[in-house]
Amino acid sequence: MNTFTLQLPSDSQREYPIHIGKHLLEQKALFAPFIHNRPVCVVSNVTVSPLYLKTLEKGLEGAKSLSSILLLDGETYKNAESLNQIYAALLKERFERRGVLIALGGGVVGDITGFAAATYQRGVDFIQVPTTLLAMVDSSVGGKTAINHPFGKNMIGAFYQPKMVVMDTETLKTLPKREWSAGMAEVLKYGAIADVDFWQDLAKASPHLENDFLNSILFHSVKTKARIVEEDERESGKRALLNFGHTFGHAIEKILGFGTFLHGEAVAVGMLMAAEFSKNRALLTEKDVAELKTRLQQVGLPIKIPRVEVEFFIQAMRQDKKVEKERIRLVILEKIGAAQMVDDATEEELKRAIVPFME
Amino acid sequence: MNTFTLQLPSDSQREYPIHIGKHLLEQKALFAPFIHNRPVCVVSNVTVSPLYLKTLEKGLEGAKSLSSILLLDGETYKNAESLNQIYAALLKERFERRGVLIALGGGVVGDITGFAAATYQRGVDFIQVPTTLLAMVDSSVGGKTAINHPFGKNMIGAFYQPKMVVMDTETLKTLPKREWSAGMAEVLKYGAIADVDFWQDLAKASPHLENDFLNSILFHSVKTKARIVEEDERESGKRALLNFGHTFGHAIEKILGFGTFLHGEAVAVGMLMAAEFSKNRALLTEKDVAELKTRLQQVGLPIKIPRVEVEFFIQAMRQDKKVEKERIRLVILEKIGAAQMVDDATEEELKRAIVPFME
Repeated sequence: MNTFTLQLPSDSQREYPIHIGKHLLEQKALFAPFIHNRPVCVVSNVTVSPLYLKTLEKGLEGAKSLSSILLLDGETYKNAESLNQIYAALLKERFERRGVLIALGGGVVGDITGFAAATYQRGVDFIQVPTTLLAMVDSSVGGKTAINHPFGKNMIGAFYQPKMVVMDTETLKTLPKREWSAGMAEVLKYGAIADVDFWQDLAKASPHLENDFLNSILFHSVKTKARIVEEDERESGKRALLNFGHTFGHAIEKILGFGTFLHGEAVAVGMLMAAEFSKNRALLTEKDVAELKTRLQQVGLPIKIPRVEVEFFIQAMRQDKKVEKERIRLVILEKIGAAQMVDDATEEELKRAIVPFME
Repeated sequence: MNTFTLQLPSDSQREYPIHIGKHLLEQKALFAPFIHNRPVCVVSNVTVSPLYLKTLEKGLEGAKSLSSILLLDGETYKNAESLNQIYAALLKERFERRGVLIALGGGVVGDITGFAAATYQRGVDFIQVPTTLLAMVDSSVGGKTAINHPFGKNMIGAFYQPKMVVMDTETLKTLPKREWSAGMAEVLKYGAIADVDFWQDLAKASPHLENDFLNSILFHSVKTKARIVEEDERESGKRALLNFGHTFGHAIEKILGFGTFLHGEAVAVGMLMAAEFSKNRALLTEKDVAELKTRLQQVGLPIKIPRVEVEFFIQAMRQDKKVEKERIRLVILEKIGAAQMVDDATEEELKRAIVPFME
């Protein structure tokens, strides 16, 4: 098992362990310090709970009481109704402030459970137990919680840190291949924006990973994310670099309708667009962009989206919540392994970056 | 104008000024540091906005843009629907993360606007401009934000501090007498739990206050609250003492139906019950309880509630969110000016404290 600690500088009480390894769900010693003799409620979904809830319950022996709430599966359900399903269930069982929520599932379960924990009785403790690659390398670390609103994705949320993150690599064995690929998009992102050695290592990435290589991927990804979050919890500066590919990616998700492309798939094409933009500013080479394309294809990710009107695409980008002072803020690459933020993209530059990646 | 600063120890960046005085709404210099060239949205209600929105808008000159959202008036509307009314309006106008929300109104407007600010795009700045005595001395200071849930009051919320609190005593001139009295319940509370000299001063309190005395009341109340919040922002200890009268009071509100008694009226009778409880434990004297009764009556507050089944009353107390490990936690008085928490109240003791204050 690999463990390291995420330490937020603003407050000495806010540090938490992140564990990566095999068969962690059932390790009572991991959970005991956080749940001993306290009420515990596991929030999961109808897909994940039949696979792992029973195993996790072994790890949760010692809780004062144990209940579970099952959401429907999918991004569609990351909404106010599911949130209220959690609130109502907790209130019905008179779940106490000293209780602990545990998110068992992918990013949707983690984000919504985290937001419920942030707001139920003004905040209760919670633990992230991500079961998808995407949730492990991205959403479970860093304390961003949210639900979607009919008018925009992740528009309602809070910064609220978990007490612990437990990544059991065994749970990835049942992950559908397409979701595995989507997670790899974020892994490649960490290499591209922050770590050129890791980027080189990822040339070995394929849909069939040895366990050691998987551990190394998780460790590098999570460490990169944790270090950035430690410097900038609330995304006033450096944390925004994690959005490489995301401003384009959110527009893709919005235009195609959430769910047509998985988030990671949209980010994959979004990274290509951002890389193309960087190339057009003479920061990346043609070869860098080609290499990114190869890496994405190698792990089963798309490199194009269906053709849409490019004006609509740019319009959708303008609605992203990263837009400040009406300027689109973009993360671009200075080179492989180093990113920067720009807010002076012209309409013409955006078009030149987007169009090559439409069918 | 009186000003002091609330400083939260856990984070040096979290301190904010609280201003008390006449004609502050229109003082541009107060608002400029927080709103200059930023989008501003004022959240108010249909009762308060015709009286003060125009005046406040003078103070807000210099904002990049100015919009307003008007909620319906009353505790009934402190709910998920009003919250969504705010979210939807902000999203429709593409309100940016760097925008500032301003709560202009009483506790309902302040609580819901604060919660909207805490959760819109994971947090935007907000300013409290309380226009009722209760909101000035209680809810606008300390960063508790919330909405009600059909299953319980203030069950959904967050700790989220404003950037500034502006108390313009001119706004109290239009405050209905009954609401003025309700605010005085919390003022009396501060004397009773923390400041015996202030308690003595309050013997002079009547529904007709000189401006100097009003300023002094606000200053003492807010200072007491601010000092307690500074020591214990998240109510793990000392802050809970502010709930003197509230565990009984919440049960009163719940049993009579929210809105029959104003919150302050319920707290008034709740304080009497808690004082009676303290007397039965030989902490207060008969005379102390009589004095509290006189003070409450003097400012127009009720000292009894309609007769209900005392078992139902205690049942309602058990549903309060302050209940831990199934024990009712009560704030009682050691003496006038000093409070303590107990969690060993017996059913019989509770009955003896409640019954004398039913008609």
